[in-house]
Order: sequence, then C-alpha cells, then structure tokens
Amino acid sequence: MPYDPLTPRSPGFLHQVPAFLAGDDTPRDLLERCIAVIEARDSEIQAFVTLNLEGARSAADAASARYAAGNPLSPVDGLPIGLKDIIETADMATQCGSPIYEGYESGRDAPIAAALRRGGAVIVGKTASTEFAFGAVTATRNPFDLERTPGTSSSGSAAAVGASMLPVAIGTQLMSSVMRPASYCGQVGVKPTYGAIRQAGIHPFSPSGEHVGAHASTLADAWAVLRFLSNEGGPEPGFHGINGPDTPPAAKKPARLMRMYTPGWQIADSDVRAAFEAGLDRLSNAGVEIVEPAGVPALAALEDDFARAEWCISEIAAFEMRWPFFEYEAAGHTHHPRIATALARAHEMTLTDYHSALDFKAAFGDRLLGVGGTIDGIVGLTAPEVAPVGLDNIGHPVMCAPATCAGVPSLTLPLLAAHDMPLGLQLVGFHGQDANLFAHAAWVEDLLG
Amino acid sequence: MPYDPLTPRSPGFLHQVPAFLAGDDTPRDLLERCIAVIEARDSEIQAFVTLNLEGARSAADAASARYAAGNPLSPVDGLPIGLKDIIETADMATQCGSPIYEGYESGRDAPIAAALRRGGAVIVGKTASTEFAFGAVTATRNPFDLERTPGTSSSGSAAAVGASMLPVAIGTQLMSSVMRPASYCGQVGVKPTYGAIRQAGIHPFSPSGEHVGAHASTLADAWAVLRFLSNEGGPEPGFHGINGPDTPPAAKKPARLMRMYTPGWQIADSDVRAAFEAGLDRLSNAGVEIVEPAGVPALAALEDDFARAEWCISEIAAFEMRWPFFEYEAAGHTHHPRIATALARAHEMTLTDYHSALDFKAAFGDRLLGVGGTIDGIVGLTAPEVAPVGLDNIGHPVMCAPATCAGVPSLTLPLLAAHDMPLGLQLVGFHGQDANLFAHAAWVEDLLG
Repeated sequence: MPYDPLTPRSPGFLHQVPAFLAGDDTPRDLLERCIAVIEARDSEIQAFVTLNLEGARSAADAASARYAAGNPLSPVDGLPIGLKDIIETADMATQCGSPIYEGYESGRDAPIAAALRRGGAVIVGKTASTEFAFGAVTATRNPFDLERTPGTSSSGSAAAVGASMLPVAIGTQLMSSVMRPASYCGQVGVKPTYGAIRQAGIHPFSPSGEHVGAHASTLADAWAVLRFLSNEGGPEPGFHGINGPDTPPAAKKPARLMRMYTPGWQIADSDVRAAFEAGLDRLSNAGVEIVEPAGVPALAALEDDFARAEWCISEIAAFEMRWPFFEYEAAGHTHHPRIATALARAHEMTLTDYHSALDFKAAFGDRLLGVGGTIDGIVGLTAPEVAPVGLDNIGHPVMCAPATCAGVPSLTLPLLAAHDMPLGLQLVGFHGQDANLFAHAAWVEDLLG
Repeated sequence: MPYDPLTPRSPGFLHQVPAFLAGDDTPRDLLERCIAVIEARDSEIQAFVTLNLEGARSAADAASARYAAGNPLSPVDGLPIGLKDIIETADMATQCGSPIYEGYESGRDAPIAAALRRGGAVIVGKTASTEFAFGAVTATRNPFDLERTPGTSSSGSAAAVGASMLPVAIGTQLMSSVMRPASYCGQVGVKPTYGAIRQAGIHPFSPSGEHVGAHASTLADAWAVLRFLSNEGGPEPGFHGINGPDTPPAAKKPARLMRMYTPGWQIADSDVRAAFEAGLDRLSNAGVEIVEPAGVPALAALEDDFARAEWCISEIAAFEMRWPFFEYEAAGHTHHPRIATALARAHEMTLTDYHSALDFKAAFGDRLLGVGGTIDGIVGLTAPEVAPVGLDNIGHPVMCAPATCAGVPSLTLPLLAAHDMPLGLQLVGFHGQDANLFAHAAWVEDLLG
C-alpha cells in the first residue's frame, strides 16, 4: 500500500489519555493492542531490543485501576511508551547498541525513566539504538518498507511508533536522530529547546548537544510526554524547562514562516521537492506568508549558519566524547568508522578548538534570536530524502542540524509523501517557545492533514 | 603550636613538578614522604576512606622513569593527589559518605580521574566526603586541632592537604565545600569559574551549581592541576574551560578590590574581624584601593545579592536533587536532616519555582559582570569563623555562597590566623578570568605571606 499521509496509521492512538479519562478505553486494553502489534510485526521490524511485558501489564493494570477510581497520577498515566536503549532502566538492560554494554544492567532508572514511572506511564521496552547513538546501525527495518532504513540513531523508537506498536517512544538527537527517523517512519517527531529535559542516565556522547525528544502518533501525546518529563523529571540542570498548558496548545496560525533550504535542498530529488513545494503552496494559499531568505539579509545570513551546523556539532561532539571513549579505546575496544573518525578528531583537538565551535554556536543562536521579531518560525523539509533503501544507508542530517545546533525547538509532521514513502515537514521555533511551536504545528496539521 | 600563617606547613610541597624536572626530587620519593605522613597521622585525622598505595607506587615509579628519561606526560605528571569520595574511580570504591554506596565499585573513572591518569598523576586515595557532600559529617578531624571540624563537605581533601599528607586533593563545592574547609585547614582552596571542569562521574546533587575545585599547598600546584583538568578532561559540556598559560600566572597587583561583607560579617567575632582588617590594612598600605560597597550604588546592590545566594543555591539544589534522591526515598532510604529538609522542599517545588531561582542567579551574574570595569575583584573572609570545635559544628557557608551562586572564580589563601587557627582570605574574580584571579592571588600572597 503506498504511503498516504492523510490516512492515519494508528487510529487507536489519537491521544489516548482523554479516552482513559472518558472511560472509553483503559491502559491495559491499549497495552494489549500494542502487544498484539508487537507480536505480529516485531520479528521482522526489530524495533525492540528488550521487552518487559510482565512489568508493563502490571503498570497498566495499576493505571487502569487509578482511572477507574478517578485518580490518574499525571497526564501520562497509563500511556505505553518505549525508551531508546541508551537510557538507563532499573528493570531492563541498557546496551547502547554496543558489545561493550551487552547485557549491562545499571540497576537504576535515568531521571526520565523515573519520572515516567512516577507519573504512571507504562514502560514497555527498550528500543534499538545505533552503537552509542552514533556508530553501527541496528537490524531495525522501516515499517513502511522492510528494505529501507528506519533512520538513525533512534531507529527502534521511530520504527515502533511508525508500525503502531506504541503511541509514543523516547529518542535522543545530537544532529537529526529523532527528527529524521520520525520523517522516514511517518510520525510526529519533536526535539524541544536544548536542555528542556534532563539527560542524566543517558549514555553520554556530546551532552551539550544532545536533546531528549519524542516520537509520537499525535502532537498531543508528544506534548503530554515532553511537558511532563520537563516538569517532573526536570530540565537539564541550569536550563529552563517547557512552559505551557497541561493540555496540548491550541492551534494557532503562523503569519510568516521563513523557508529553510540548507545544502540539503541541492540533494533533494524532484519528487521530494515537488511534495515540499506543494505543501508550501497550500500554506501560502491559506494565508501564511512564506519568506524567501534571499530577499532579507538577516535571513540569508542564517543560511550560512545552517551550512556550518554539522561542522559545529561534530567539533563539539569530538571534544566531549573524550570521556568515556578515550577509556573505551584504552581498554582495547574498537568502534564503527563513524565513531573512530570522531575519536581521531578528539585526539587532535585543543580546548581552543572546542571554544571556537562553542562560540560559533552561541553567535548562531544570537543571530537566530535576532530575527525572532520578523518571522514566526521556519519551515523546511526534515530530510532531503525519504528513507533510503539499505539499512546502512542512513541518509542526511543536513536539514535537522541547524535547529539542533542552535538548540531551538523543532518538530516534524508526517504530512508529505514521495516515492510512496512518508516525508516529514519540519517546523522550527524560537528558543524556549516550544508551546508556540506546537500551536503552529497543530494549525499546520489541521490545514494539511 | 599556635597556627602561624607565615610558617609553611609543608615545605616539601612548594610546587613539586619543577623539582621533578630539575632532578631534585622524584615522584616516588615525594609519594613516600606523603605515605609516611599518612601512616603517622591518618589514624587520628581520618582524611582517607580508601587508599591504593600499591597503585600509587606503581604510577609514581612510571612517572619517575618518565622524568628520568626527560619525557613527562603533562604538568601534573607524578603529582600525588587525592579525590573526594563522590568521584568515581575504576580502582577504588566510590562510597559517597552514604551507607547506600558502601563498597560500591562503579568500575570506571570519572573524566577528572581518567584525565589525571592520562597525565601521569599519582592517585593515592579517596578522601572522606560528608554524606553525598551534603548530609552527615565524616569522622575526619582538623589537622590543626583534632577537636575541631576540618570543614565540610570536602572534609578529607582539606584535612589531607592541611596535614601535609598530599600536596593536592580534589574537592567539590555547591555552596562552600572547597573554600571553607580549605580556610579551616590552612591551605589554598580554589573554586574555578562554573563549568571549567567536567562533573560526569561525580555523584549528582545539584549539577548546575556544583564546582570541581582544588585543595593545595601552593597556588602553583592548584593552577597546574585545575588548568590540566580543564584542558585534558574538558569543561562541563557546553562551557568554556580555563584559558591561560601552562605555568602559573605571574603575580599581578590588583588596583581596586571591593570589600565583601555578606551577612557573615555580623557573626564574625572580634578576633576574626581584627585579623581580616589587619590584612586589608596591609593591602591598602601597599597601594591596593579597598572599595567600600556602601559608597557605590552598584556595589551596594551586590550585597543584597550576596545575602540571597544561599537561598538561591538551596532552591536550585532542591529541585535538581529529585534525581536520584526521589529514587533513594522510594527505595526506603533515609538521610541526615539536612538532606531530608532539602528533599521535602524538592517535593513542594514546581518548575516555576526552579525558574525563579535560575532567573535570580542569572540576574546576579549580570550585575556582577556589570561592575567588572570598576573593580579588579572582591576581597573578603572565606568564613566568618575559624574551624569550630565539634565535628558536627560545620560553620557557615555565607561568605562563599555569593561567588558559588554567581559561578565566578574564587580562591582562599592561608594568610590569616585567629584563635591560633588558620583563617582564609578570600579573593573573588570575574567570570572566566581564572588566570587573572590567580595572578592577583600570587601578588597578595607575596605581600602577606
């Protein structure tokens, strides 16, 4: 069946918590529907590396009882969820996609896992991560075409949600690792403002660039989970969390959106370009002004920054990965060439090199903040391609790197298609304005969905 | 013997690395002198909770061979050092002063431990920390008077250096936990600019406020170790590290220093006040202008900020300690009342409360930066008292909290005395200007030492 973005993939996942509250559904019933899909499809998709169905059923029963008694614990009570396998869990191994961590039990919950449990969420399993979210790919397949990659590095989280095994899964993004797989797997993907969600207990690669994000069937569930994690588990120490209402922000029309090209536009093929242009036309016809950066010097300058984002993220990551990767190296471990290349750079770099990359990042963030009065956000492709054929063909992070580097919130909506596969529409907001971005996204989804 | 700040306690520790380079000493010889003091005194002082003398001797021999061959690894090669026991080490347990972690082996080195080993430093042992650097005190005694506290929370690090068991030990400071014990134990204590040294692998309490610092017999060794850790182990991800020369910054006379009172001045007794006033007089007589804040509105306003620093640090810490302390609580663990009180506040706080404290901190930092053109730094007492009698009598963090809250560099010099005990003189610098602070401190030490 060709991919049609207008057909919801998972009609059972249209923001479940209100259904629990209304008594139309229960956490246990929803979990069983998830488990039925997992049992039917995960042998071929391989989204999960570990499942704890007994624990999940027990948590779902407890949540069902709370709803029956009218006392849910939180806006995520009873929600089935998966966690990328670089996130520590007390009840399941945390294997980081690496033989170094095969069977590793940390014995503790990361703050996000702990917060989810306190809120009554149902942690179903650990989803496949590429090696340390950076290196060797997983065996996971794209649920829309098993010959294609689900995207990296949050491969399992994206595939689980794309296959309707779960309404929500947590991923992490250093460059494009939530947004791009979410685009490839036909779902909502959200990377909040940097620091909105605490990273402790997540295997470190480059903590100053890493973002905890959500893969979700609906914007509403993504909002519920991310806002809850930010408030209950807390933001990254010293950073602000996600402000906003308990319930998902109401749809709000953006007046002006800057169109983002990045060097990725050059490698997008004609079908992908046509799908994006058609989406822009519909936004434009609905009265959203699409601002071409070429006509506005401050916006045109941003395209130069966008083009340097991958360099900046890579430099910072190489310096920060010294720990623990120098230790792994000293112990004789070897890694995928992507990690080995970064590690070689880590050995060359000085503190001054690191400061240069940090200074670029700060200046880029300032320039982006500076245009905040002239546009309401940025619109672009999430990736310059649909999910490539071949599990080792990981595609390009180029369209996601700018928002990640600047630390501003971005999200992808499964509203486009090309080559019979999903293609994400990316919206980028301003620093700390996550709620506003969700409001714009809800409006865009209403228009194009 | 009454404490006399003009008599160096540890003449063997006058910046050892140059002696290694000159061939006047070897790392193994220095280590053996350290071990001799440890064996003579630690049964009564109890600075160490774990020693690895075999590993230290092996590391010292390797360093001795490198110096003999003219190939030292780094400016800390061969330097004996102790690590506060909340810092993970692969070769020793990390017990955090808590029964929860009794005998706990993480199996890995924190980035600062890993960097020290890469640089050839000789890690001698783990020094006593109060419970999670916050709660129940240790059995450690002040080397200048066994009836008195060594100060908290880096009790063992301060006592080990104060007793001449080690030239350098690493501590951490959330409020006053390096500076105050360094004052009580007659030594140099340094808390660099926030973020200058990476905290991973250190048990978290409030990472956005925690600083890695040094207890040292000399300013030169403190500089060598901190600058090395910042460059080799890296800063806290996303933050700048310590810039400056390889060798300790040359002495530089400060032209104008603001005098800091804080509410602590009110509780300082007449002997302590007299010692500080005498120090100020000597600075003044040598041509340093001592600026009274009352006469300058922007400086007077800072005193209001100083008075709120403890509140701000405590609020932020309460929110950030949710993880892992909510987990310890859920597992049935109980803690010292200091921790329990903070934990109770953690349960009450909202994200908005947390943001309020962060916003005060940022505004305070901006106000401090704003006076940077009018003064060269700040001078004050490090504590309003000498080490109190009684191990549970932990004294007051009030004079250290301002620099910690603002994240600016501060250091204490063992140049004053009262009640026959050491009393630190505190110098506070500006954000990122750690090298400048060391240069001023070297000048002050030359004048008063």
